[in-house]
Amino acid sequence: MEKRCIGVDLGGTNIKVGVVDPSGNLLYKAERPTGAEDGVDAVIARITSSAREAAEASGTSWNQIAGIGVGLPGFLDIPRGVVKRLTNLPWENVPIRELLEKAWNRPVMIDNDANVAALGEAWSGAGTGVSDLVCITLGTGVGGGVIAGGRLIHGVGGAAGEIGHIRIEEGGALCGCGQRGCLETIASATGIVRMVKEMVSSGRETALAAAVRADTLSTRDVFREMEAGDPVAEEVIDRATDALAQAMATLSVILNPARFIIGGGVARAGEALFRPLRRAYQKRALPSAAEGVTIVPAQLGNDAGVIGAAGLVAHGGNGNI
Amino acid sequence: MEKRCIGVDLGGTNIKVGVVDPSGNLLYKAERPTGAEDGVDAVIARITSSAREAAEASGTSWNQIAGIGVGLPGFLDIPRGVVKRLTNLPWENVPIRELLEKAWNRPVMIDNDANVAALGEAWSGAGTGVSDLVCITLGTGVGGGVIAGGRLIHGVGGAAGEIGHIRIEEGGALCGCGQRGCLETIASATGIVRMVKEMVSSGRETALAAAVRADTLSTRDVFREMEAGDPVAEEVIDRATDALAQAMATLSVILNPARFIIGGGVARAGEALFRPLRRAYQKRALPSAAEGVTIVPAQLGNDAGVIGAAGLVAHGGNGNI
Repeated sequence: MEKRCIGVDLGGTNIKVGVVDPSGNLLYKAERPTGAEDGVDAVIARITSSAREAAEASGTSWNQIAGIGVGLPGFLDIPRGVVKRLTNLPWENVPIRELLEKAWNRPVMIDNDANVAALGEAWSGAGTGVSDLVCITLGTGVGGGVIAGGRLIHGVGGAAGEIGHIRIEEGGALCGCGQRGCLETIASATGIVRMVKEMVSSGRETALAAAVRADTLSTRDVFREMEAGDPVAEEVIDRATDALAQAMATLSVILNPARFIIGGGVARAGEALFRPLRRAYQKRALPSAAEGVTIVPAQLGNDAGVIGAAGLVAHGGNGNI
Repeated sequence: MEKRCIGVDLGGTNIKVGVVDPSGNLLYKAERPTGAEDGVDAVIARITSSAREAAEASGTSWNQIAGIGVGLPGFLDIPRGVVKRLTNLPWENVPIRELLEKAWNRPVMIDNDANVAALGEAWSGAGTGVSDLVCITLGTGVGGGVIAGGRLIHGVGGAAGEIGHIRIEEGGALCGCGQRGCLETIASATGIVRMVKEMVSSGRETALAAAVRADTLSTRDVFREMEAGDPVAEEVIDRATDALAQAMATLSVILNPARFIIGGGVARAGEALFRPLRRAYQKRALPSAAEGVTIVPAQLGNDAGVIGAAGLVAHGGNGNI
């Protein structure tokens, strides 16, 4: 009987629960609103009913489930399986592993959302066949996960892979973390929009001015106008890709990865992002560390978290691939 | 019968060969000039006779030797056991593992000198009991080794841990690697001496001027005058420690290590280095990644390479601790 794993991607808005086969294929995914305001017990009950739904719909008996992996957005005590604090959910000191193991009578593993996304891509997405990679998610913030020698890197307190807080600009824009000039302030969607707004405020002419005034500006607009030759859009994307390339150059001398996988909303721009990014990386990176490195889009999209969470269990808890 | 390992630290000037017990204690160390000009075969013969000497002097029979680890300064193909190119020895494409295994009939592992030094400190030096650490060597250059989750991080091409080439200053001094503003140009002994010289050239008054003119300036002089309140010495050490702290802050968000171990000639300054370094790190580091981090001097000195090289074999080839 083929053993399968359940992956849970717990977000502030939605809970996604999937059943994953031993090759990392997602057989079925259930998704529903998190409803965080109803409290921890209600959320756990929703995870449980989603898991039952996904098992049933994928033709998986409970005996076939090897275990459940859970990806969570926030600060975790991974060895103890405890949520210390989440980013978009009012959870504090929740012993999630113990609660789920009691409810399900199966081994449960937890890890943070950026790490499970990296593990998902490494297992059955853009990182297949590569043992050393860095996964970077460009969304409202910049997240990251590191796989070195085939294993997820956690660090002593589970805070490894916080790539968004690599400092790029001395005295740059204030970051949510309290520091200035972090990568996240420049290469996130928020950072890109902020830089355009600042240039419009300072009187620069750009086709993006109307969207800025209407407060509807998105990174999609910025990439579109960059492709059309708008100088402000070009300058902002150059700054964002150069900042990301600097961080990647630093990651290369520290970790010497074979591949960078770039995902998140900003990466939907496709070649409009990857073309200037690859050029900037070639300029910034130490040649011996950059040799043969590929920079590719993430492949699993919103499923990376569910697949990677299942991968925590499938690969022995610490994310061995 | 207790199994022991032999560690070889092959440098441009000296060969050090030691016998190490299962706890990482160095039982005996033989040291002799490398004599690189005599060619590869002669150097290998010297390593072999040093190994025999060390085995005999430590009361170790050849049957007790579990294997031999070799640390080398340069570019290696670690999985194949081949030296691609060394920094201070005219070796190119030398299949060192095969040559030594044939000569000794024992398993041989190789790794670069900075990695084996980190492994030595992790095994029985300043990193004992810690699974996530970064070892930084401040000498004429800046080297590094990373241990994450109890394992040496190599990266895809063995180039991980090149901490000296983290870029600190946009448009800074030219580095040996061809880039500008690398950590090595600021925090190495060479960088510290260069900065003092530049300040003397630009007319700054300092007690170090005489040593600059006599071309005898060492980092020891700079730390001594810093302690005596010389403003040029203070400024240079501030720059060097701030650059190192910036690199450590970056390493903290990427790897979240529990400990930084600082070794090499510059670290002999002791508290004159560590006091400003700890202060700068507290200022530069993201608090969540810096929580509980300790910054300590290396303990094994020149023996780290021999002990760590032996550790390659003792810990299963890939440096598991």
